[in-house]
Order: sequence, then structure tokens, then C-alpha cells
Amino acid sequence: MTRIGFVGLGNMGGPMARNLVAAGHEVRVFDLVAAAMEGVGGAAPQASAAACVDGVDVFISMLPAGRHVESLYLGDDGIVAQADASTLLIDCSTIDPDTARRVAQAAADRGIAMLDAPVSGGTAGAEAGTLTFMVGGDTAAVERARPVLDVMAKNVFHAGGAGAGQTAKICNNMLLAVHMAGTAEALALGVNNGLDPAVLSEIMKQSSGGNWSLNVYNPFPGVMDGVPASRGYQGGFLVDLMTKDLGLAMASAEASGSAVPLGSLARNLFRLHGQVNDAGRLDFSSIQRFYKPDLD
Amino acid sequence: MTRIGFVGLGNMGGPMARNLVAAGHEVRVFDLVAAAMEGVGGAAPQASAAACVDGVDVFISMLPAGRHVESLYLGDDGIVAQADASTLLIDCSTIDPDTARRVAQAAADRGIAMLDAPVSGGTAGAEAGTLTFMVGGDTAAVERARPVLDVMAKNVFHAGGAGAGQTAKICNNMLLAVHMAGTAEALALGVNNGLDPAVLSEIMKQSSGGNWSLNVYNPFPGVMDGVPASRGYQGGFLVDLMTKDLGLAMASAEASGSAVPLGSLARNLFRLHGQVNDAGRLDFSSIQRFYKPDLD
Amino acid sequence: MTRIGFVGLGNMGGPMARNLVAAGHEVRVFDLVAAAMEGVGGAAPQASAAACVDGVDVFISMLPAGRHVESLYLGDDGIVAQADASTLLIDCSTIDPDTARRVAQAAADRGIAMLDAPVSGGTAGAEAGTLTFMVGGDTAAVERARPVLDVMAKNVFHAGGAGAGQTAKICNNMLLAVHMAGTAEALALGVNNGLDPAVLSEIMKQSSGGNWSLNVYNPFPGVMDGVPASRGYQGGFLVDLMTKDLGLAMASAEASGSAVPLGSLARNLFRLHGQVNDAGRLDFSSIQRFYKPDLD
Amino acid sequence: MTRIGFVGLGNMGGPMARNLVAAGHEVRVFDLVAAAMEGVGGAAPQASAAACVDGVDVFISMLPAGRHVESLYLGDDGIVAQADASTLLIDCSTIDPDTARRVAQAAADRGIAMLDAPVSGGTAGAEAGTLTFMVGGDTAAVERARPVLDVMAKNVFHAGGAGAGQTAKICNNMLLAVHMAGTAEALALGVNNGLDPAVLSEIMKQSSGGNWSLNVYNPFPGVMDGVPASRGYQGGFLVDLMTKDLGLAMASAEASGSAVPLGSLARNLFRLHGQVNDAGRLDFSSIQRFYKPDLD
Repeated sequence: MTRIGFVGLGNMGGPMARNLVAAGHEVRVFDLVAAAMEGVGGAAPQASAAACVDGVDVFISMLPAGRHVESLYLGDDGIVAQADASTLLIDCSTIDPDTARRVAQAAADRGIAMLDAPVSGGTAGAEAGTLTFMVGGDTAAVERARPVLDVMAKNVFHAGGAGAGQTAKICNNMLLAVHMAGTAEALALGVNNGLDPAVLSEIMKQSSGGNWSLNVYNPFPGVMDGVPASRGYQGGFLVDLMTKDLGLAMASAEASGSAVPLGSLARNLFRLHGQVNDAGRLDFSSIQRFYKPDLD
Repeated sequence: MTRIGFVGLGNMGGPMARNLVAAGHEVRVFDLVAAAMEGVGGAAPQASAAACVDGVDVFISMLPAGRHVESLYLGDDGIVAQADASTLLIDCSTIDPDTARRVAQAAADRGIAMLDAPVSGGTAGAEAGTLTFMVGGDTAAVERARPVLDVMAKNVFHAGGAGAGQTAKICNNMLLAVHMAGTAEALALGVNNGLDPAVLSEIMKQSSGGNWSLNVYNPFPGVMDGVPASRGYQGGFLVDLMTKDLGLAMASAEASGSAVPLGSLARNLFRLHGQVNDAGRLDFSSIQRFYKPDLD
Repeated sequence: MTRIGFVGLGNMGGPMARNLVAAGHEVRVFDLVAAAMEGVGGAAPQASAAACVDGVDVFISMLPAGRHVESLYLGDDGIVAQADASTLLIDCSTIDPDTARRVAQAAADRGIAMLDAPVSGGTAGAEAGTLTFMVGGDTAAVERARPVLDVMAKNVFHAGGAGAGQTAKICNNMLLAVHMAGTAEALALGVNNGLDPAVLSEIMKQSSGGNWSLNVYNPFPGVMDGVPASRGYQGGFLVDLMTKDLGLAMASAEASGSAVPLGSLARNLFRLHGQVNDAGRLDFSSIQRFYKPDLD
Repeated sequence: MTRIGFVGLGNMGGPMARNLVAAGHEVRVFDLVAAAMEGVGGAAPQASAAACVDGVDVFISMLPAGRHVESLYLGDDGIVAQADASTLLIDCSTIDPDTARRVAQAAADRGIAMLDAPVSGGTAGAEAGTLTFMVGGDTAAVERARPVLDVMAKNVFHAGGAGAGQTAKICNNMLLAVHMAGTAEALALGVNNGLDPAVLSEIMKQSSGGNWSLNVYNPFPGVMDGVPASRGYQGGFLVDLMTKDLGLAMASAEASGSAVPLGSLARNLFRLHGQVNDAGRLDFSSIQRFYKPDLD
């Protein structure tokens, strides 16, 4: 049994915390929304984030953006200032690597180990405990974190030093955006030339066109069961969230002087799709509709 | 044993014809380059393409571009005019679907069955008899062709009616170009931010970034054995050939009024890479160098 | 007074022919639509295109696409076969340079001078006689054509040899598409950041951002009087026509092995705008709505 | 005569300060590089930035990036804390609008008027006193600044409230990047199809392709005298600086949720050109070489 503090109980953080409770850990929780705390049965609601870090073995946060992470961890009454040197800090938010490194450095300056550990797998993965964690930080800290993360994870990857978890997720999601939009584009081109989308999908899957979007998340309605494309693009990974992640990729490209022409175009295609089709709250595979506006 | 005529004995056609001979078929061959005919031991060299179609069961062609196909098949002394109604015509060239359909229609007008059957798998696949055929035409004709194609193939896909083989290949290769360049871009972004390319590749392979380019044809030198990236991008699928296929995709998009923003950008990135880096004769995964000019 | 044959009396050809009549020339006309011929008062309607070329000094055509031009000029009963060696042929259609060169070569083979002379200026320019002609062909032929073209033109540019008129128009319109979409994009970015579109337009016009789209054809509603943006994007130069011209640019880039990343992206943005917003029949400056869907 | 403090005496700030001295103003200067202060004859070098703001009417800064501006103005010993309420603060650096607004707000909180006033015109314009200022802030403050700015300016534009000067410059330079690269692309396409670049340039200038890059800064060597293209792309506006400004545009698009597909592509083309051709220190019109690598 590990004593764990958990801050940020939204669509992702809530089920993650519940899985920690279910695994028998002693979990203290805090969220600005009181109802969110009640949603984690068996956990001990706290009056503040600071109360969650007091005397725990592991402190975990799951927040929307870099500014929230900065605000939670830094400053005179931030988590870094309040935590014991023995507490392991794990931020699971998806944020820019620079902020992740800055916060980790502040922790290191006080002798506290910290990891950036963004996830993929969505709310379904959070609930099922099958998330993928991409972790940045020292090897020793990653090993300390592993038993706790394993409760929530299918995979735990150690990407490198501080910030590397964020970078790995940014790179992965940029590539995902490119091949999802590319798959939608190739399917539309084939269908516009008279091909059956299911036949073309099958051919490309077994050929060099194969990729995750095509193979397990086909964006064309009616080709694959159980994916958002077959339920009106409801649920899944929202266009707005993919657009946010692509924004992090753009910032990371700028900071490192990298050329990202395809990632940039994907960013703009998802942005345009979101605004022209009012599609921000649809699954990101709905980009298919941008290419085939006549789809039902 | 089938009587086969084969025209076009280049880097692809030569080994394809040799495999047909090795399988025990009676093969007549023709190529404008006499030496190419001698390279197919056991086949009967002919003085003209027309001589290859005279009385055969199956006639196969493998030519560089649509204008060669048109010139071979159409006109008063073309193959369509010379062939028996019982001969099955199979064009394995990669060309635009419109030309493929026009030639197939000319054959149909004379009651002759014809298939477009472009391949992927490169010269290695041609030699090993492990090509993938993407076939367009009537089902009955595809079934007639299958025993012959199987000698040269790992997979034979029936994509749809006349021209559908070409369209399937065009769509597949456009998607391949997009995820190859996208993979190179994501790896460069990660490495520019301090990640190890092998670690990042492994993470993305097991996550939603996975795709054929990353999984089996990694473009970053030193990450994967036995791929062009690990031998200076020699051999493989040339930038010039990928650029040609992307040109067919652009023409196909124009003809069908399709939007292909990512495919278009990929076409221009490979074109720019080819001309700026004089890379036309390197494997197409050398696009990695466009993103990381400091690579060895 | 010059004897002129004119074939193709659509939205452009009709007013062009009327201006030739008004200038006192003897004009024979033909169009597949009989009513179109009646619309050119003072001209002599003919029963066929061939009848228009019989014995005239200058023969002019204005057709929708390359296949119409090929069909009109080539073949046993085409214009090239029917024309006297003394007749000057001028094709004002906007088509691909390859077709233009092929037709001009066929004419040259019979000792007949031919020019490709596509226009810009739209239907308003055609009616007012203020078109811009971009002309490809021999200097002597251009000089012979000038008095006739001047009746319909504000400017007559000699771009180079056969096909050069088409190439010049293609390059110009590709650049126009790029700066029109670029202008719409910059204005949307400014407005999204709180700037007044009129103030921003004025600043950029007087700075290095200045360009034809911004300076005389502002795409943002309410900034400039008398432009399509201020009348719901009605009239002007249709999205569908710009998309067609960009298709010619793509084909020309393919034929010459040129990299055109921005032109390709512009082609796809106009294509997407046309299909997503059903905007094909709106003026091309309506691309502003693609960037600002909330515009009235 | 106005008492002026001036901080940041680099390639731009140095000549700007000299022009203020030449106009008879009393100018105090500070730069971390002592030699830079000596370069402004007639000005009074100071030991610190703070000393420059003490008792002056107008305080001007010209710094490389947002973090320098933040560091200069904010904090307990920053300019905002040190300045009199009667001093007008003018930051001429090109930075992101958010930082500009934050600093202006800090000044406003102390009752001090502040303007963001980035410039265009380059070092030549700084020396000749012919810069263009794009100014954000209150109208009253802009009017107070005008007599001082006029000494250094050809044009002073009031773009809007705080930050609007930065936004206007960002939009202008993004559009400039798009039409410069677009012009280089159109010229390469024309030349690859046999046109003379000077003839094509002249035609497009007088047609709808016209834009600042084509009209006064032609990127093709030999077409226009006195521009960087005719002196090996030396001098002018560096690729590295254009790339920096495009990075600000990307950040601004992200912050405002704007789609900027062409600006993003231009950003990546300039970035790729800089790294593949080692062209960061060449004028930005050298993007022509990216399209035509065989140019001398």
C-alpha cells in the first residue's frame, strides 16, 4: 500500500484515481469542483492541493494546461515548496516540455524527484486502466513510479530525462494527426475514383500504406465496427484536443528550430475542420468529413 | 503450363518474366533492348511486341509510363488490334487510371478481357516472387489471371473495375509518402528536443503513431538493421519513383476533383528533397536528410 | 477592316466578338449554342467552325478546356487542316501549355502562324475591351495580331514562343491564388487578434505586405467598395475557375518537374473551400469565409 | 528638444539613436556592449538602463526578443517601476503581442503610458530615418510619440490598442513571407517552362500577380538592379529574422485559434531553406534558390 495524493479529477484524472483506490492504495484527492472529489469513492477528499501532498509517498496531478501545472507546483505555497524530499511527484498533464523541465528543475533544486508522465488512451483507457504513459525523468524515479503507474497502465515507456515524456507524446500525436488526415485523404481520393472504401482500406492495410489510423481506427463510416466513424464520430479523441496537442508540437518545433511542414499543415487542417464544420467536439477521425462533405 | 507473352524486361519486368519461366510456363518475350531479352533464360525472344501476343493465353506488359502503354496497346498495329479474343491482357505498369481505363475499354470493344495490375514490392519483390498486385477489372478475368500472378506474388488484391488497380496503388503510395515524411519529421522533432531516435521509434511503434514506415522501414540511420537508412539510403524505392507516383496521385486528384493537401505537400517535399539534395536516386526514406541535414 | 472568324461565344467570347464588330471588323461567328450567335449583332452566324475560317485574315477561338481546343483545331476536318496559310490563328482559351504547343506545331507544319493568347480581366474586361492578353508565338505573328487584340485589350504582352502565353497566365494566376489566400489569412489573423480589418489593410498596403489582392480586391467584407467582398462575393472570378487554373498549374509543375508547395496548398484550399462551403460559384475572394466562417 | 532615454543599440537601435541626436534631442543611451554606446556620438552613455529612464520625457527600447523586453521593463528594478508617470515608454522591439500587452498593462497599472512600436525597413531604413512604425496603444500616447518617431520614420501607423503594433507587424510579415516565396515559386515554374524571368516578372507586375516582392524586391537574380538577388543575396532582411517573425505569427495564431496554413507552410519553407542551404544569414529573397538550386 502506497500513500498517494491526486489533484485534478476530470474526465481522465477521476477514473485514474478510482483505479488507484481499487488497487488498495490510500488516496487523498483534491479538485476545485467538489463533486469531482465525491466521484472517487474510497478516497479522502482534501480542502486543498497542499493537503494532498502532505506526507504522501507519491503525488500525482492531471491538469488541462501548462499554466495550471506551473501554478500548482511553483510559488511559495506550491507543491514543490510544500513536498517532503521523499515524495515522488508525477505530473500526468499534457503540456509543453519547457514548462515540464522548469517545474522538474524547481523540484530538483529542493532534492525532490519529479516525472512528467503524459498519457494516451483517452477516457476509455483511463477507466480500463490501460493507458500508455510516456515518462521523462531519472531512471531511479521511473522505477519508483512504475508500481503505481502500472495500476493505470498497459504500457509505461521511459522516454528520457525531464520533459522527454512530453516530447515523446507530442511527436507521437503529431505523427498520428498526419497519418489520420493522410488516411482520410487517401480514402476520399479512392472513393472519388470509384473504389469501395472497405476494399481500399483492406488493400492498404496489407501494403505499405498501413498505419494505426487505417488499421484500428478507420475514419470512413461503415468500414470498421466499434470506432467513432461508425457512430457519427461521437466520443473518442476530440478535434479540439488534437488541435491543442498540435499546438504544443508547433511550440516545440519553434523552440528547437525544427521544420514540421506536414505537422503544421495537419494542425491547420484540424483547425479549419473544427471551425468550418463546427467539429471541435467530434472525434478527430471526423476529419474525413472535411475531405468528403457529402458523407452522412 | 500457360503460353505467356511478356513485353518490357526492365528492372521489374525481367525478374518477373524469369519467375514465370521458372514456374514452367512457355514464355515469349520482347524488349527494345535486345540484351534484356537474353537476360530471361529459357524464354523465346521475339522480333516485336506483336509477335508476343500471337496465340498466347496471357499477355503481360511492364512499361515505364502511360504513353508507352497507350502506344503498345492502341492503334492499328497495337496489341488490342492483334490479340485473339481468348487472350487475357494484363498491364502491370504503374500509370494513370484514365489511360488504364481507355486501353481496357478498347480491349472490351473487341471482346478481349484486360486487367490493370500494378505492383508494389520493388525489384527485390520482383526477384523473390513476392510482389503485391493491385488489380482492376472483371472478377472473372481476375480469377483467370490469378494462377499466373501467384507465381510472381505474395498478395493479389482485386481492387474493383478497370483502372481500380491503378487507383489503389496511387492511394496507397500517396499515403505511404505522407507517413514516411511524417515519420521523418516526428523523429527529427524528437531528436532536436533531445530524444534518442531508437527510444522514440519504439514508443511510437507501440502507440498510436505506428505505421509501416516507422515499423518496418525506419528512416533514421542506425535505428533498424537491414533498411536503406542503415546503408546510406542506397537501393530501395527511389525518390524519383515516389515522386513519379505522387505525380499520378496529383493527376488523379485533379481528374476527380479531390482535395489532397497532405499528398500535395508530400509531393513537393520529395520533389524539393530530390532537387536540393540531388537525392533522386536515393531511397525515399532519405527524406530524413531533408529534416536533419546534419545526419551523416 | 479585317475579316475575322470567331468560335466560342460564351461569357467571354460573346462580348469579345461584339467589340470586334463594334470596331468595324467583318466578323463571322460560330457556337454550338445558336442563341449565342444571335447575341453578337452585326456578325455573320455560320453553320460550322470550319465555315468561320474559310478565307478570313484572323481566326479566333475561346473555348473551355484543352480537349475542346484539340478537337477544334486538329484532325482531318479541323481548323488547321482547313485554314489558308495566310490566316492567323489565335486561341484565347486558357489551357495547358503542352496542348497549346502541340496545336501550334500542327499549324506550323502546314505553314500557318498560330498564337496562344489567354486573357485575364474576366467578363467585365471582356465587355469593356480592357482584357490583358498573354501571348505565346513568333514575334511577327504577335505584331500581326496586335491591331485586332488591341480592340479587346488594355494590355497585350508577348510572353515568348508557342505555349508561353499559357505558361505566363498559369504562373500569374497561381501567384494570385497564393496572395489572395495569404491576404485572407493575414486579415483573419489580425482580426482574431483584435485589429480592425480596414486599418490593418491600410497598413499592409503601404508596407511590404502590399499585393494586388489586398490593394485592389480586398477580400474582407466592408473594407473596400465595389469589390465582390462587399456584395456577398457575387460575380467576379469564380472559385471553380480559379480551381481549374490551379489544376493547370499543377499539371505544368508536374510536366516540368517543378516544386510548387504554396501553389499546391492554395489549390487544395480553394478546392476544400469550394466543396465544404459549396462556394464554387462565388468569387474567389470568398476564401475569406474559409478563414472566418462567422462572417456574414 | 526632448529628453530621450534609449536602450538597445544594435544594428537597428544604434542608427535610430543617432538620428534622434542629429535631430537635436538630448539622448541618453545604454547597451550591455559598451562599444555600442560609443557609436552614438553626441549621446550620453549611462551605466544602466535605469539611468536612462530617470527624468526623461520619452524612453525607447529596441531589443531582440520578448524575454529581453520582459526582463527590462518588469520586476522591482524594471523600467516600469523606475519611470515617472509623465514619461512615455515606447518599445520598438518585435515581440509577441501577449508580452507587449502584459508589459503595457504593468505600465498602465502605474499610470504610465506605453506603446508597442515595432518597425519595418531594416538597417537601411534605420540609418536613413525612413522606417515604418506600426504602433499599438492609446491615441493620446501615439500623438505624443509622433514627433519623436517622425525623426526616424517615413510612416507611423496607429494599428490599435496595446499589442496591436506587434500584431500588425506579424500579419504584414507573414503575408510578405507568403508572397515572397510564392513569387519565387511562380518565377521558377515559368523559367522551368522556358519563360524569361524578366519578361514573366513584367507581365505579372502589370497583372493580378503583382505584389511588393515581385514589384520592388524581385528574388530572381538579374531581373532587377539594386536588390539582394542581384548581389548574391547579401544584406537585406535575413532568412533567420524572417523565420523568427514567422515564429511569432505561429504563436499568435495559436493564441487566437487562427488557421494559418499558408503562413505555416512559408514558415517551414524558410526554415528548411535556412537549414538545408545554410542560408540563415542570406537575404530572405534567397528562397529563390530553394526552388532553383541550379542558380548561380
